[in-house]
Amino acid sequence: MKAEFVNPFLSSLLEVMGTMAQTQLKPGKPQLKTNDKAYGDVSGLIGMVGPQTRGSFSITFEKSLALKIYQRMLGSETTEIDDDITDMVGEITNMVTGGAKRLLGEKGYDFDMATPAVVSGPNHTVSHKVKGAKITLPFTCPDGKAYIEICFED
Amino acid sequence: MKAEFVNPFLSSLLEVMGTMAQTQLKPGKPQLKTNDKAYGDVSGLIGMVGPQTRGSFSITFEKSLALKIYQRMLGSETTEIDDDITDMVGEITNMVTGGAKRLLGEKGYDFDMATPAVVSGPNHTVSHKVKGAKITLPFTCPDGKAYIEICFED
Repeated sequence: MKAEFVNPFLSSLLEVMGTMAQTQLKPGKPQLKTNDKAYGDVSGLIGMVGPQTRGSFSITFEKSLALKIYQRMLGSETTEIDDDITDMVGEITNMVTGGAKRLLGEKGYDFDMATPAVVSGPNHTVSHKVKGAKITLPFTCPDGKAYIEICFED
Repeated sequence: MKAEFVNPFLSSLLEVMGTMAQTQLKPGKPQLKTNDKAYGDVSGLIGMVGPQTRGSFSITFEKSLALKIYQRMLGSETTEIDDDITDMVGEITNMVTGGAKRLLGEKGYDFDMATPAVVSGPNHTVSHKVKGAKITLPFTCPDGKAYIEICFED
């Protein structure tokens, strides 16, 4: 996994959140995934397959932040992580990965996206299983935390 | 999503569980995913991308069953869903999907597998986001329940 794979996901996420949900996420320090696990309440996961490499991407939100993004994107409120929220998280997963795919394609790294799956459940954690580095990027904003994880095979 | 996509995953799972973990899972009735959600404690998810279609697959275990399978596959015991358990669930996800890929390839349906991700957290649920049918297959055995979900784009 190359370090240059990370920034396209980072910038794609910031753009999707800024333009679609008027939400400015503040990125923390990227970290190679260690024993410190990040937890959240709703996660979108998607697989990626290309001629040079394959991998997986996830984005995990705390409930408070997912509900706020829903309110801003859809203009209506909900108090639980229901099918509307998981649909939205699936869409965000598609949009962020699609944006990163475009940016990476410009650098000559092509991949196709699988379809996303969304996991909901209080305080779960995601662990990508691949031979190669995994990068975790935490984000904060006044409404809660989020993190993304990116991994590609070496 | 074609009905003939389901059986290869079913038979691959039964074989992997039987040969690797001496565990006979009893399949329940396949169902188109409805509002009844299935819950579990540890899930492996993987994306699939092929020339004709793309999709995602997940397998979800209750904790009691995951711990028992670990004991049978690895010959040692653990009481929590730790990294050893999630590694095992990632491997099972790869093996089941790899077996189904082989069987589907014989029928002319080819796809490449992304890398798996494993989610752990008590009582979570998985929701595949794709335009097309989603099939849920429940399984029971004396040590607990499992279910798989398969979806491919129409």
